[in-house]
Amino acid sequence: MTTEISTPTLEERLDRFYAELEGNDLVPLWQVSGQLMRSAPVPSTIPYLWRWSTLRRLAEMAGELITIERGGDRRVLSLANPGLQGAPFASSTLWGAVQYLGPRESAPGHRHTPAAIRFVMEGEGVWTTVNGDACDMRAGDLVLTPSWCWHDHNNASDQPMIWFDGLDLPTVNALDAVFFQPYEPDELQPVLGHGISERIWGGRALVPAGMDPTVNGHASPLLVYRWADTDAALDALLAERPGPLVTISYTHPVNGGPALPTMACEMHRLVPGRRSRPYRKVGSSVYVVFRGAGSSIIDGQRFDWSQGDMFVVPSWSTLEHEAIERSDLFAISDRPILEALHLFRDELFDQAQVVHRVFSAKGDA
Amino acid sequence: MTTEISTPTLEERLDRFYAELEGNDLVPLWQVSGQLMRSAPVPSTIPYLWRWSTLRRLAEMAGELITIERGGDRRVLSLANPGLQGAPFASSTLWGAVQYLGPRESAPGHRHTPAAIRFVMEGEGVWTTVNGDACDMRAGDLVLTPSWCWHDHNNASDQPMIWFDGLDLPTVNALDAVFFQPYEPDELQPVLGHGISERIWGGRALVPAGMDPTVNGHASPLLVYRWADTDAALDALLAERPGPLVTISYTHPVNGGPALPTMACEMHRLVPGRRSRPYRKVGSSVYVVFRGAGSSIIDGQRFDWSQGDMFVVPSWSTLEHEAIERSDLFAISDRPILEALHLFRDELFDQAQVVHRVFSAKGDA
Amino acid sequence: MTTEISTPTLEERLDRFYAELEGNDLVPLWQVSGQLMRSAPVPSTIPYLWRWSTLRRLAEMAGELITIERGGDRRVLSLANPGLQGAPFASSTLWGAVQYLGPRESAPGHRHTPAAIRFVMEGEGVWTTVNGDACDMRAGDLVLTPSWCWHDHNNASDQPMIWFDGLDLPTVNALDAVFFQPYEPDELQPVLGHGISERIWGGRALVPAGMDPTVNGHASPLLVYRWADTDAALDALLAERPGPLVTISYTHPVNGGPALPTMACEMHRLVPGRRSRPYRKVGSSVYVVFRGAGSSIIDGQRFDWSQGDMFVVPSWSTLEHEAIERSDLFAISDRPILEALHLFRDELFDQAQVVHRVFSAKGDA
Amino acid sequence: MTTEISTPTLEERLDRFYAELEGNDLVPLWQVSGQLMRSAPVPSTIPYLWRWSTLRRLAEMAGELITIERGGDRRVLSLANPGLQGAPFASSTLWGAVQYLGPRESAPGHRHTPAAIRFVMEGEGVWTTVNGDACDMRAGDLVLTPSWCWHDHNNASDQPMIWFDGLDLPTVNALDAVFFQPYEPDELQPVLGHGISERIWGGRALVPAGMDPTVNGHASPLLVYRWADTDAALDALLAERPGPLVTISYTHPVNGGPALPTMACEMHRLVPGRRSRPYRKVGSSVYVVFRGAGSSIIDGQRFDWSQGDMFVVPSWSTLEHEAIERSDLFAISDRPILEALHLFRDELFDQAQVVHRVFSAKGDA
Repeated sequence: MTTEISTPTLEERLDRFYAELEGNDLVPLWQVSGQLMRSAPVPSTIPYLWRWSTLRRLAEMAGELITIERGGDRRVLSLANPGLQGAPFASSTLWGAVQYLGPRESAPGHRHTPAAIRFVMEGEGVWTTVNGDACDMRAGDLVLTPSWCWHDHNNASDQPMIWFDGLDLPTVNALDAVFFQPYEPDELQPVLGHGISERIWGGRALVPAGMDPTVNGHASPLLVYRWADTDAALDALLAERPGPLVTISYTHPVNGGPALPTMACEMHRLVPGRRSRPYRKVGSSVYVVFRGAGSSIIDGQRFDWSQGDMFVVPSWSTLEHEAIERSDLFAISDRPILEALHLFRDELFDQAQVVHRVFSAKGDA
Repeated sequence: MTTEISTPTLEERLDRFYAELEGNDLVPLWQVSGQLMRSAPVPSTIPYLWRWSTLRRLAEMAGELITIERGGDRRVLSLANPGLQGAPFASSTLWGAVQYLGPRESAPGHRHTPAAIRFVMEGEGVWTTVNGDACDMRAGDLVLTPSWCWHDHNNASDQPMIWFDGLDLPTVNALDAVFFQPYEPDELQPVLGHGISERIWGGRALVPAGMDPTVNGHASPLLVYRWADTDAALDALLAERPGPLVTISYTHPVNGGPALPTMACEMHRLVPGRRSRPYRKVGSSVYVVFRGAGSSIIDGQRFDWSQGDMFVVPSWSTLEHEAIERSDLFAISDRPILEALHLFRDELFDQAQVVHRVFSAKGDA
Repeated sequence: MTTEISTPTLEERLDRFYAELEGNDLVPLWQVSGQLMRSAPVPSTIPYLWRWSTLRRLAEMAGELITIERGGDRRVLSLANPGLQGAPFASSTLWGAVQYLGPRESAPGHRHTPAAIRFVMEGEGVWTTVNGDACDMRAGDLVLTPSWCWHDHNNASDQPMIWFDGLDLPTVNALDAVFFQPYEPDELQPVLGHGISERIWGGRALVPAGMDPTVNGHASPLLVYRWADTDAALDALLAERPGPLVTISYTHPVNGGPALPTMACEMHRLVPGRRSRPYRKVGSSVYVVFRGAGSSIIDGQRFDWSQGDMFVVPSWSTLEHEAIERSDLFAISDRPILEALHLFRDELFDQAQVVHRVFSAKGDA
Repeated sequence: MTTEISTPTLEERLDRFYAELEGNDLVPLWQVSGQLMRSAPVPSTIPYLWRWSTLRRLAEMAGELITIERGGDRRVLSLANPGLQGAPFASSTLWGAVQYLGPRESAPGHRHTPAAIRFVMEGEGVWTTVNGDACDMRAGDLVLTPSWCWHDHNNASDQPMIWFDGLDLPTVNALDAVFFQPYEPDELQPVLGHGISERIWGGRALVPAGMDPTVNGHASPLLVYRWADTDAALDALLAERPGPLVTISYTHPVNGGPALPTMACEMHRLVPGRRSRPYRKVGSSVYVVFRGAGSSIIDGQRFDWSQGDMFVVPSWSTLEHEAIERSDLFAISDRPILEALHLFRDELFDQAQVVHRVFSAKGDA
């Protein structure tokens, strides 16, 4: 009697091999390297714009419908980039949102390792208390709530207030480094004073001896940047450098680095009449139109914007701005992270180098 | 005729509100904040171990089956953490893999922004050329291929060779910062010499004047760390500090930072007889058992290991080691990233503080 | 006949030995170590005070007598500490002086590696041009002329002006690092504008993108610090911290270090009624009384001062201040040098710890 | 009766003015600025050489004549640069000396803020204990006694030993920052072990986790640099770079800076046959000929040297070397000070650029 042993074909052997890899939690690089290693970044984040009229309407609706019991202690609507499959992130690395605080309401205290900024679109009468320092919020002001600092928001006025929230949350989350703690047992921290950090750390290159610049860890000890100062700095810079675009960075007053070690904050002033030079960089940005009107072209796609609109620029996308009136664009980005890891690159083009068909963005944008 | 206008119920209004949010690419924070903001990190990465016997067998099978045409110019089997839904990543931030290079074969040149290390498990006769410097690879050696440095691998011997590959790829990918370039037009770079970096930068705190320490950007100019030196350093450290665990970091010889700005490399020597103190830190690690046998307890789950095994420790998982013979564990981690962003935390416990039921890991591990 | 060879005595041998050392340019440590190695610093610099009435009278006399031909292009009277054997230095490390510029006069341009500051006691109408930037000088302003920056002084008014000059010259000289160059062929640099650095670098923690913060090397890119800002910062600090003494440091707006890498500039505000806590530090200071009246006790020696007076505090001397009216003391010190070399130490005492007989200073002081 | 009032002449008024300045401790800049501000450094330090035969003979004489009672616990002969008017300093910023320790003798413990190095010319059997770590001294070794570290020297052999002492004392003294403390009550510190720092910090870019790199403040935690390592590093560097001159810096193993924050230590290897390119830098150096023979040309003045000779190169002097056999020159310099204060400059010339008459040095040199 003979036993026939059939020799497996190469195809069979390969099938078995790949099955065994999968069964042993191994992935063959040669089947995924094309996806993983592209010649330049291919972000999932897409260029996108949210209209202020929509944001405001829905934020007000939240104010009406979302009571404290339903989650109303943080009425935040998060920009969810359509490229990110439903994740509540404006880009792969940045959180952007509008927050609505009703008249006489407070958002209770907590702290977390993700760092946040608040940029005030309009209104006044609200303050954010950060480690006991009540930071009054008015249009154009930037308020920091650095990593692991206690913070709550308080509206002492009879008007609701809406502002922009920016966080490094997607990155801190990707690094499995999120810690969170509610303030207890009270809802709100005691207020030690208003504007303390401004008085101590808000000088013009004047630093008080004997005060600790690390009160907020590696973040800026200055918690508020006032619009009047930003406005004046932009004017002065425009006097030295013609437009169409000048940029001011909000910095740490003692080490000159970014106000937050994980998130850059900038204000761009655009002068109408000339398109800014095409520019791209590694890392994404979220823009908030503080004042003005115009459009931005992101990888050839035109987004028209006016006051209050918010839009996202993905990593390595080419960006051009064109204002139709003098405009101020506030922006956050992940640039400090990329610089800290020595992964930052950027390129500034001449207009002629970037020849692309400009088309209008679809949908709401 | 009368028209009846039905007032919508609150439920209907809420439904409509949530539908409108979704239709406008907005997510209500109050429905996701519980997931996003946890009191401590809750990684998707799970503790996991791959056996050397399996890794080696499948690597050899790849050597046999995967010809150049089928992707055999980089025969890499990537550790795919079961918690990461099929992604070819050992942890949320780290790539770990085994690479197989057949006798007389070469892996062609390329460069990419993710940084890589090679840790040699066994064998000799292979070198990795990095920017023209041929780095000979022998058991226990660590070879760097820093971000954006040209590199290829060459086996001049009649034996295949297998080594461990570690990369920061998941993080660079999450930051949309991956760039890649094949070496052209030849497959391999010209070799300027063997061991150049060792001769120039391998002194004991002796640095040559007039040589540029930034040849590899912010990574170490020293590309190879020899086992004999690591072994001697571990012995000397054990002479000063009793075990059960001593650790040596591979560093940048000129700035004392980590050898790579995005990935820490360490060698741990374990002495049998005593369990190491429980320890946890933010950020994940991949361990490679270079020599010895023992077990590691990760969040109470015991993983027995012996030579060649590889295992993953997720962020904030409590880790204890217990060797049954003198053992050397090589490890990579994302610690430099967390430190650069000021998100690093760690805790060392006394044995008694960590009371958990130790159970054996399931499956292959 | 016998020849007697006399064996030298020990004394003779020692004499011969010491003579031979001297003849070979060698010094026996054991004869000088007592002088060189003291338990704490024993400076040659002595505490000393110059009266404004004297300084002003002699500066005006210089204005009258010292024509351009006689050296009148830099009518500077240098404080010569009586402990320093005629050297024109206020302390072993600092230069202090009054400079007089007549109506419609200019002090021609030059540059040098020693860095200088100008602190304006009174008057206006003069500017110092630094690398083309005309810095207007008014009472209470601080103007920098950093190392190796071109500078000249110009009086466009019909009044003479007197200010305080501070330099790190003694230290740069001790290090054999003085370079000097006259501006040529014209006497004065072209003026590119007035207050350029203030507009660009004078923001409150707001930094312009794309401008080079190293225009003045390692010194501050901001060249002028205005009295109104200093005054406001002192007031704000006093609101947070009760006196009797608060201190503001003039800093580099981008790196937070001292305005000049070799010389610290500070303004101290004293509130009457309480003596400041005794304090000593390594390194010397020169004080200029901008406003007010009071006294300072240096190693127990009392110096009464009023507006315009200047005094020197040697290294490691214990210093106490006591104002009889609200007073502002401007000061320069060598502290950045001592810190850069890790030689800085200081001590703050409780009043009771320092029991010394306070006696009045002799002579003019 | 008429009273005649004689109007003083201008000369009389000037005389009176200058007298009044002097009487008020003021110096007119215009009479000293020519001395103070020269176009380039004009050091008092002169180029000078001390012969080993002389140094050794006088050191041995000191061993014989200078008993403990006469100061023999530190038998140090200090190089006194003839340009420095009798001061016991090799240059304006550096101390250089030979120290003699007799058989079975000890030099008692003390500490001081000036930092010191010991470079061993010949012999063995002596150790310097630094903060409890006994550092064995053999020919070619460099031993550090950093600022404010306890140290004593011990000769356990039956032979005397002579070595080179280098200190930053002149600079620390000029800054009025010298502190000194004798070890008490015993003469010698307890020895915790031999070569501790070498075992912990002597790895090749391998750093032990959990050990404090700031044990010696800002100085290197590694206290000894062995000749075998220096020799190997010089050989390896020569293999990469042809001579006539290669240089190795002794560095801090963790921050890559100089071994001491105030004093650079270097070893230069010269290959015969070609003169090194003319070079000058701000700051002075003291050279010690460890091995070989040749000559150095300092500002055109030739100094022939052989083993053991010591010579001084002043600030900004042009230096060329020409070996007649393979030679190793150890050198200390003040370069870290000048770099920390941003006062460092240097220039490397082509041979043809420096046309000067080379003349032989006078006297002993």
